[in-house]
Formats: sequence, C-alpha cells, structure tokens
Amino acid sequence: MDLEDGYVDISAMEYFFNPRSIALIGVSKDIRKPSGRSLNALLQWNYKGKLYPINPNYTEIHGVKCYPSLLEISGDVEMVIISIPAQSVLEALQQCVVKRVRAVVLFTSGFSEVGPEGKALQEQVAQLSQKNNLRILGPNCVGLVNLSNSVMASFANIVDLKPVYPMSLGFVTQSGAFGTLIFAQAVQAGVGFSSFVSVGNEADTEFSDFLSYLLTTPETRVIGGYLEGAKNGAKFRKAAQNALKLKKPILIMKVGRTQSGARAASSHTGALAGDDKIYDAFFRQMGIIRIETLAELTSFVIVHRCGRMPEGNNIGILSISGGAGVMMADKCESLGLNVPEFTGETRRILEAYLPPFGSAKNPVDLTSAVVAEPEMLGHCLRALVADDNIHMITVAMGFMPHSAPILAKDLIEIYQSTIKPIVLTTYNISSSEVIAKAIKSIEDAGMPVLRDHLHSIQAMSNLARYSAKVRRTADIKTDRQEIKPDKEAEKLIKNPDALSEYEAKKVLDGYGIPVTREVLATSADMAVESARQIGYPVALKIQSAQITHKTEAGGIKLNVVSDAEVRAGFEEVISNAKKYMPEAKIQGVLVQEMLKDGIEVIIGTTDDPVFGQVIMFGLGGIFVEALKDVSFRIAPLSRVDAQELVSEIKGYSVLTGIRGKPPVDMDTLVDVILRVSRLVTDHRDAIKELDINPLMLFANGAKVADALIIKK
Amino acid sequence: MDLEDGYVDISAMEYFFNPRSIALIGVSKDIRKPSGRSLNALLQWNYKGKLYPINPNYTEIHGVKCYPSLLEISGDVEMVIISIPAQSVLEALQQCVVKRVRAVVLFTSGFSEVGPEGKALQEQVAQLSQKNNLRILGPNCVGLVNLSNSVMASFANIVDLKPVYPMSLGFVTQSGAFGTLIFAQAVQAGVGFSSFVSVGNEADTEFSDFLSYLLTTPETRVIGGYLEGAKNGAKFRKAAQNALKLKKPILIMKVGRTQSGARAASSHTGALAGDDKIYDAFFRQMGIIRIETLAELTSFVIVHRCGRMPEGNNIGILSISGGAGVMMADKCESLGLNVPEFTGETRRILEAYLPPFGSAKNPVDLTSAVVAEPEMLGHCLRALVADDNIHMITVAMGFMPHSAPILAKDLIEIYQSTIKPIVLTTYNISSSEVIAKAIKSIEDAGMPVLRDHLHSIQAMSNLARYSAKVRRTADIKTDRQEIKPDKEAEKLIKNPDALSEYEAKKVLDGYGIPVTREVLATSADMAVESARQIGYPVALKIQSAQITHKTEAGGIKLNVVSDAEVRAGFEEVISNAKKYMPEAKIQGVLVQEMLKDGIEVIIGTTDDPVFGQVIMFGLGGIFVEALKDVSFRIAPLSRVDAQELVSEIKGYSVLTGIRGKPPVDMDTLVDVILRVSRLVTDHRDAIKELDINPLMLFANGAKVADALIIKK
Repeated sequence: MDLEDGYVDISAMEYFFNPRSIALIGVSKDIRKPSGRSLNALLQWNYKGKLYPINPNYTEIHGVKCYPSLLEISGDVEMVIISIPAQSVLEALQQCVVKRVRAVVLFTSGFSEVGPEGKALQEQVAQLSQKNNLRILGPNCVGLVNLSNSVMASFANIVDLKPVYPMSLGFVTQSGAFGTLIFAQAVQAGVGFSSFVSVGNEADTEFSDFLSYLLTTPETRVIGGYLEGAKNGAKFRKAAQNALKLKKPILIMKVGRTQSGARAASSHTGALAGDDKIYDAFFRQMGIIRIETLAELTSFVIVHRCGRMPEGNNIGILSISGGAGVMMADKCESLGLNVPEFTGETRRILEAYLPPFGSAKNPVDLTSAVVAEPEMLGHCLRALVADDNIHMITVAMGFMPHSAPILAKDLIEIYQSTIKPIVLTTYNISSSEVIAKAIKSIEDAGMPVLRDHLHSIQAMSNLARYSAKVRRTADIKTDRQEIKPDKEAEKLIKNPDALSEYEAKKVLDGYGIPVTREVLATSADMAVESARQIGYPVALKIQSAQITHKTEAGGIKLNVVSDAEVRAGFEEVISNAKKYMPEAKIQGVLVQEMLKDGIEVIIGTTDDPVFGQVIMFGLGGIFVEALKDVSFRIAPLSRVDAQELVSEIKGYSVLTGIRGKPPVDMDTLVDVILRVSRLVTDHRDAIKELDINPLMLFANGAKVADALIIKK
Repeated sequence: MDLEDGYVDISAMEYFFNPRSIALIGVSKDIRKPSGRSLNALLQWNYKGKLYPINPNYTEIHGVKCYPSLLEISGDVEMVIISIPAQSVLEALQQCVVKRVRAVVLFTSGFSEVGPEGKALQEQVAQLSQKNNLRILGPNCVGLVNLSNSVMASFANIVDLKPVYPMSLGFVTQSGAFGTLIFAQAVQAGVGFSSFVSVGNEADTEFSDFLSYLLTTPETRVIGGYLEGAKNGAKFRKAAQNALKLKKPILIMKVGRTQSGARAASSHTGALAGDDKIYDAFFRQMGIIRIETLAELTSFVIVHRCGRMPEGNNIGILSISGGAGVMMADKCESLGLNVPEFTGETRRILEAYLPPFGSAKNPVDLTSAVVAEPEMLGHCLRALVADDNIHMITVAMGFMPHSAPILAKDLIEIYQSTIKPIVLTTYNISSSEVIAKAIKSIEDAGMPVLRDHLHSIQAMSNLARYSAKVRRTADIKTDRQEIKPDKEAEKLIKNPDALSEYEAKKVLDGYGIPVTREVLATSADMAVESARQIGYPVALKIQSAQITHKTEAGGIKLNVVSDAEVRAGFEEVISNAKKYMPEAKIQGVLVQEMLKDGIEVIIGTTDDPVFGQVIMFGLGGIFVEALKDVSFRIAPLSRVDAQELVSEIKGYSVLTGIRGKPPVDMDTLVDVILRVSRLVTDHRDAIKELDINPLMLFANGAKVADALIIKK
C-alpha cells in the first residue's frame, strides 16, 4: 500500500474485534502451538461466538467440532485465524474470499521480512485483500485480543494473563515480542487493556487503521503504541486529529531516534524509518505524547483514568521527605511544570499547621512530625485544594499502621471534595495488613496511587501538556481564507520548467510574501536604470534556472554603489556564468536592493516520504550549520503550529530582542510561514523543495532576500 | 565550617563504623521511639560490642543493664547515640568529652533547621566538637548503620530489613527520609549495602568525610550519595580523586538542578545550593556518575559488581525481540555507546546460525526461532565474545520451561570463558520453577541479570564512561612545570589596586598568554607614534581602573585609520570619559592593533563559594547570550580537563572548521586555558573574577583582544 491509496473503511475493522464467529485454519491440539494456543484461550476465557476449528486430521478438538476445510462450514464465518505455512496462505485466503469472510488474522511468517521472494508473496496477499475487500491483520504478527469480549486471536502468552480492570488502554504494536512484554509488564503495574493488536508486516491494515478504530470503542479511553515507522503519514494525522477531538490521549513509544536505532528499525519490519526529528515534530503538533519507557505509559494511564485534567501548569507538592520534595520539584521544572511559591491564605494555613522546622514553601516538607500527627496531611492538603493558583497536587507519603486509616480517610474525603487532579506516591515496604487495606481503599475511591515519585511527576506533566493541547485544539485550523494567490504565481508553479531566483520570488510574491525590490535586467543600460530606481547600494545576481549555486558561478556582486560599477558588474557576472556553465540559459541579471541590519532566518520545506510537505524553520548562518538549531511542522499549518514552530528553536531569544536590539516583527514572520504552508499545500505535487534563505526580519516587516524552489 | 578549616582525621571516623562499645543516651523501652529502635536493632542483629543503655528510670532494658548516666559506666565507651531533646544535648556532649567518647550519633532535631536560635545552639555543638576533637554525626539525622558488623546506630526502618549480599554499596545521604526510601527500594532490587549514613545538619562531620572514609573500607566497592549541596568543595574533590585512584565509582543523585529544586534544597537542610551547572562540571571532571533515578543506581551496582570493565565503547546487542533490540540501540547511541555493524567472521557466523528472517546486523534479532532452538543464543553470543571490536554485550531473552536449562548452561559457560562485561535482561512473567532456578543459577555464576532493557543499557553506558575516565586518570596532572610567570605580573596582582585593561593584559602576558600589540599613550603625539609602529588600523581605548564599561563611557574608537583620526580620537575618548566619570583617574589611551578574521571565544573565571576558582569557556557574542552555550571546570585544570572544557560546548564545530574555514589552533587555546588556570590558582585569594572577552582564535595562534581582572 503506498501513500496514495489504501484508506480502509474503519467500520469494517469491527469484524476483528467483535466477530460473531471465528474459524481457525491450521489449528493444533497442542496448546503450545500458535493456533492451538489461540483456540485454547478462546475456550478458556469463554468467547461467546461460534468457533470452527479447521483441521482435516480431527473431528473434534477440546470438545469442539472440527472441520476439514473452511468451505465445509455451513454457517457464516466472520473472522478467520490462519497459522499454516506461508506457501499455503494464498489458497486459504482465496477460500476466505469465497466464504465471504470479513477479517483474517494471519500469524504466518515468511513474507517481506525474509527477502525478495517473501516480499512478492506478500504483495499477492495485499492485492488479494484489496481486490476482494478482505481485511487482513499481519502477516508475521502475534495477532490481537479484545479483552472485553474474550476475542483471543493471539498466540502470545498474554492470553494467559488475568485481565485487569478498568479495561481502558488500547494498544497497537509493530513488534509482536516487544509488545507482548509491554502488555505483561503493564498488567503487572495494574493497567487494564481494552484491546491489543500486533500489526506485523501491515500487508493490508496498518498501525494507523487500528488507532482510528480503537478511538471509536467506548471502553478505550487512552491509546498506546509501539512504532518503528508509519506507512502513511496522512492517515496517521487523521487518526491523531480525531483522538484530539475525542480527548483520548495517544502515547507512543517511537524507536529509531538515533542512527543505529533507525538502521535497526528499518531492518526489523522493513518499515520506512523516516527522519525521527520529523516524527518528533509531528507528535508535538498533534498532541501525541511521546514516551521513552514503559513506566511512563503505565503511570499516565493510572493518573489519566481518574478523569481529571489540570486547568494550568502549577503543581503543589506535599511530601513527608524534604529530599523527595526537592527531587520532585526539580523534575517538575525540567518537565515544564511550575512549582509556584504559596501566598496569602495558603501560606498562613500551612504555617499554622506545620512544625517550625517544616517548610511552608512549595514543595511542602511535612517532616517526620506527620508520623506522630497524621491529621497534618489533611490540613495542608485542604489548603492546597482551596488555592486557585494550584492546578494539580502530588502527595508523597509513608504509611504506618497507626496512621494509615487516618491518612486514607482524609485523602479520600478531600479527593472526593474537589475536581483537581491529585496523585499519591507511596512505597510500602511493610507487610502490614492495615497499610495494604488503607492504600486499597484510596485506589478504590478513584485516586491514582503510584509507587515512584518521578513517575508521578512525569505522569502529571504529560497530563498537563496534553490538557493544554486539548484547550488549544479549537485554534487548529489552516487559515486558508486569508490567502489569495495571484494567477502568475499559479502559472509559474504549474509550468514544468525550473525556476530562477527571480521566478521563485515572483511565486512567493504571488502568495503575498514580501520580497526584496528588484528588477530583472537584460542589458547593462537597463541594470543601471533599475539600480537608480531601487537606490544604491544594490546587489547583482545572475539569473538562470540551471545555475542554482550562484556564488560558486561567480554570479553575485554585493554592495554595488555606482552606475559605473553596475555596468562593469553586469558584464562580469554574465561572463563568469558563461564560463561556469556554457550551456546555461541566462535570463538576465537581477538588480536587487541590499537589506541592512535585519536578523536572518531560514524557512525551508521538504517533501517527506511519510508525512508529505514539511516546513523547517531556523536562524540563519552559523546557528543552523554549527548547532542544527531548527524546528519542523507538517503542512498545512495552523497559526498555533506556526507560532510553535518559531518558538521551539533554542535561539528563540535572538528574535525577541537581545543585546539591546528590538524584537522582530513576529506577526509578519508567522504570516510568511502560513503563506509558505499554503503554497506547498496547494502545490504539493509540484514542489520538491523550497528554500527561503535568508528571510530578513526587521522590527517592522520582513523581506525574502533569496529563494529557491525545486520542482519534482 | 567554612572552606579553610575542618579537615577531620579520616581514621577517627573508624569509631562510627567499628565501635567496640556503644552507649545510648535517652534510650526508651518503646521500640518505636528513636533510641529504643536502635537498641532493639543492635540486639536483634547481634552487635558484638558492649552496649550501655542510659536512662535513670530503668535498671535494665530488654535484659541489658541500664545506667543512670554516661559517667557511671566503668568501661570505655567509644560511641554514643543521643536522642534527647535539643536543650539537653550540650550537657550530654560535655559528658561525652569527659568520658573520652570518640564518636557521637546525634539524632536530635531542633538545630539550624528551625531558625536562628537552633542555629546558635548548633554552632555551640560544632565548637565543642572541634575544640575537643569529638566527632559528631548530625544533629537532625536518622543515623548510620554498618551492615557488616551490625552497628545499627539508626532509628530508620531500614534496620528491620534483611541484609542482602554481597554488601558492596556504601551510601551517604543529606536527606534521612529519602535516603531511607532509597535504601529500602535498593534492597528490594537485590542490592546489598555495606554502610548507610544520614549526615543531617553536618555540624561537625560532613558528606565528603564519609565518602573519604567509606573508600577505605574493603567491603565498599561502590559509593552512592544523595546530595543537596556540598559544604566544602576542596574536600569533596579530594574524596573524588581518591575514589578514582582506587577505582571505586561514586554515583550521586544531586538535586537542585532547577530553580525550584535549588530553592527547596536550600530551605530543606540549609545547605548552600550553589550553581548546579558547576556541580555538573565537577562531576564530569572527577568521574563521578550523576544519576537521576534509583534504578540507575541499583542497575549500576549489579552490573559493576561482576568486576568487569569494558575496554571501549562498542556494544553488541542480542535480542529475542526485534523491537527491544531497536529500543536498546537507540538508548545506546543517545547515551554515547556505539552499536557498530558486524564484519567478517562475526557476520559469517551469525548468518550461518540465524534464520533468514533474523537480522545478522547489530542489534542481532534472534527472532522467535530461538524459542524452538535455544542453542542459537549460544552460537551467536560466542561469535560476539570472539569479536575484538565488541567491548561489551547485552543479551535480552525470554525464558520458557523447555529452553531455560539450555540457555542457562550456555550463558554461564560463555560468561565464564571471557572477561568482557555481559548483562542479561529478562523479564519472567511465568510462575515456572524451572525458569526461576535457571535465572538464579546465572546470577550465582556472577553474571549480572536485570529486568529492564533500558536499565541494562544505562548501566553499561555508565560503566563504559567510568571505565574511560579511569583510563584517562593517569593524565590528570596540573602541568605546573611549564608556566613561569614574570615578576611584573606577580606585582600587579598582589598590589591591592584595581587593574585597567592594559594592566590586566600585562598580567596575562606575564603568564605567557598572547595579547594584542598595544601601547598606553599619555599624549596625542605618543598615540600617533604608537599607531604608526603598530600599523593601521588601530583601536583607541580609554584606560582607567575606575571605568570598567568603556563602551558606555564613549571611551572606545575602533578601526582608526590615519594620524589625524588618531589625534582627534585621543582627545575625544578622554573628553567623553571625563564627562562620564569626572572622578575617574585616567591613565591614558590604549592604542591597540585591530584583529581580523578570527573566531571569538570567551574565557572567564569566577570564585565559587563551594568549589573556589571555576573556569568558564564559551563562544563569543550571540552564542553565549542567546544560547548560554558555556562549559565549566574547577581549577586547577589538567590538560585533559582543558580539552574537555573546550569540546563540551554545543557549538564546538565552529572551532573545528565549518563553512570552509580552517580549524582554529586548538593547542594554543588549550595552552591559554591552562595558563589562566595557573594564574587564578596561584592568586586565588586575590582574584574575584577574570574575563577574557574576546580571545581571538586563528588557524595559527590566538590573541587576547580585551581583558578584565576584578580583585577581591
């Protein structure tokens, strides 16, 4: 499936998750073998639909009637699980088509992952599926499970695990083995799954299809994914946009961040690794939470399932240990949460209840005095809950047998009296029944409880960042209405010919982007006249669509200050260019105003194989070259996207005014970026690369000093 | 205790860890109270020395004879544990002096952490201790334990935990409660402690004293610490240097990295937070491993205790899951480990044993085929062990009952056949006895086993970085011999008067640092003559020790190109300076060569309250202002330190040649830094700040264009 086609009907995915009947081709009596394992799990967890084991050697397996072939079954079969060798798969799929099967889970390996022959076979599978509208998961996958109705279409050992409630996490993985490990560890951490899908080689259905489907299931409240590379950026974007609208967070562990990781990811499932920096920008643009560790996933799910969202970025920290408080405050700030100092009433209350050696500052150090007087926690927590400047609270407490019931009672009561997110961190090393019971009662009351201080902070920070993105979502539109490109620009870009700088600037100008005053002179006389009109000093630049490196060609003269210099310069750049590339078609010499005292920035676009038109922004010159200080967004951009694009670079302060310089005209900069976004979106099939280098920014306005557009 | 005094005799610390007798002042029968808890633990864990409970209300506690006061005891008392209210502490300490006690553990709180009164009381404790050479731990601490001989001088609940072997980790903490939590979690992760010390308010002994002592104990093979702020940087440096010589790694969790963290740390124990960036530089300079999480500590201890060190940075990855392999490869590269591709024999062997759909690349994807054929792991691992280009190996495997004994046998055999570090990551979710037994046998054979892929990589990366630092240690010397400062420089710096730019450069010149050619002109005629000698263009700069901001004063003229301009300029800068600051004493006008086409860098020094003279390095201008792209090292610097200082900045590539420019003269740059280090070390009592801004770097050589020295 390539970029252009392949939007599968999401409603058809239903048959993977809620089939009324399942046949198993290649089923075994041995429950250690893939299809045997799946049948066993379907029976064990009491799947309610009809089951049709298929194996010519048996008449029944585990008491279920066994059929010699799919076509011998009289009733409808909605889903088929296949675990026969690769060479027999096509024939089985043809039977599925005949039987009007809706969904196939294809465990079998030996396809694109083994080389050219397997790849060819997989191509046949893909064609069969698309021609016959038969949805296939796999091949080379460990299958899927829907925990809510015991559709155990997987041979992974996760089918043996006891389900955990609430079942809220839908998980999609490009690695079967690693996904299985994540599932097992998450369950152990107390996270309940709604569904789990291993997408394998993605011959037909792919990662993003399952994201889109899972969003439609009410039990799935948050989605997790393990990703090596997306096949189709547009589909991925659509799924992410829906998720944001539905306020269902997506958390993705994306590997391939580094060179060796990307190399390994490509060789693993044959996925196109793509540029990780662009994935990173995509995730930020779409509010997808990029996670690095399993703990980040599980702690987020636990904190998120309480259903509360912080209304701002300010966190209050209450801790029995001063050290833990400091560590948490550090982590908060490094993750972008504020730890504001308390004022007024809050401070007064804290000072009244805390011992003199406790700290009424944020983080609040309850000190070991809270062991003797556990009510202290409740008093302090109530003060933080009442403080409008505090948007979320983290409590780190140790429980002792004598204090546990009091702490639990206060925590539950306060938690239920507010809608602010509160997370409790506690690490119980005792074997006391009283403590275990107290903690369980807090969890049962809906309050998130974690065991690790830093995981709590990380989860709160992800929740706050996600919450802010949801609030901004209303702004995410593409501002199409404001931009009216002129006819000449359209013509230049649609024409298949290469564009010179002069023409590229005409295109930009046609999209309302300010460019330098300039004239294309075709004679020395015309050059002189133009220079006088523009005003000295001017720049002279050879114009030829074939000469993209004008400096190398000796085709540029800067700071030309007189008629005589213009005349001489005109002849010189033409003569240099002719020597440099005799076959080049020379349009003339561009006479251009010289810009002074601006700040140089670069706006570029590239055509990413996964995401399409991508816009890059950076400071000019040494910043880009020495520090690679650039940011990205996927077109089309909203105004918020453009603002984020600009503010994300490390050298942002250069634009807001340092060394006594005034800030640059940010509105114009954002406007130029939006116009570039519109241009490359309108002409995504024509433009391969666009490079504005530099755009000069002033306190008022901006001007493109040089531009290049390369067509596909 | 301030920077100058307070070096305690490390051998005296012995009495804290191996006392032959312990008295407990303020002991309670209630084992939940501090001193009661400690006595109970001493008895429970069978402390072999003499115990003297002291409490006038009892004649015995738990069957041990109880004394009315310390002075009533007839035998020697080496250590005393005090847990009486603050107001009675001084009297008890005076009794300790009389009784010639050697070490006191002072649990009591209510000292510097509660305000001015407590601070005054603590000052008295400190004076008493120093005057009488009585070593005190605390006050306001949870005490210490020595696990090897059951000296349980602590009331923290860690005294109840079953010890874990081998006892290799010595731990020192500035937070009692948080340190206790770290202890409990580390024990649960299978890490054995040799000793644990909570230093409290550090009235007498401090964090670094315990680092120094623990290094001398043979059972302590690695040291961990929780730090908010060091009291004495020189002591800390000495301990770290010793640790590096002894090859005992120090891992420190240092909080206060961010603004709120630093604020909270200062209020927590009253420690001076200092600049976290300087701590960070210090840690790198001294080979201290800065950790962020508890898992980083425990996984390092487990990997380090195998006693193996990688000889380079190349890691081989063997994984049953392609996804986990990719994730590990990513983590390796982001932490500075190389994941090289295999070549030659290694590749040939891997290809022979791996299934066609496995990956013979690094990371090696064993695929699920290894489940059916567990011997595959052994074959591949042997190939990696034999490959000289691979310095360490990580194996990520799932165990099944049928494969576990085979995997264990192969892993143990191969592990014992090599000295390369190998770590196994496995996450066992089954309840199989066979699997548990297999994994235990691997651990018993000395091979490190961890449960989390990323923790394994992090531990290996820390081990590799530490190992490289140990190898470089031989180079850490201060290159004193090469630098011979001249007399005039010494005189200028010792003289209490403020220095003008001209004089500051004379000092630098005296230390062999190249400066611009320049003459201090006291008349217009002299200025013209000097300019002719130096060669046009020149710069004119007003010289006055009182005027530190020459540009603001209108005291600078650049690019002066003729005799007439020099003459006019001379008068102008003098007249401007007189207007700007009529009381300033003007020495004259500096006529200086103009430097062209160099790359500007800044070398600065500050006098840090904790670490003393600190050297800063950065690129000039916008890099420092917009990006804060600077690095630090603590003086005196070795050549390696100076090289690290330069190479650590993000814009390092600017110095190595970009945009077609040649690289700068790195040898001269390093030489200048070493000379600056020597200068501020020689005169650390005189120099408050030194600022070379800029130093111009050329392809050959370098020159100081402007300099400022501020005296204390």
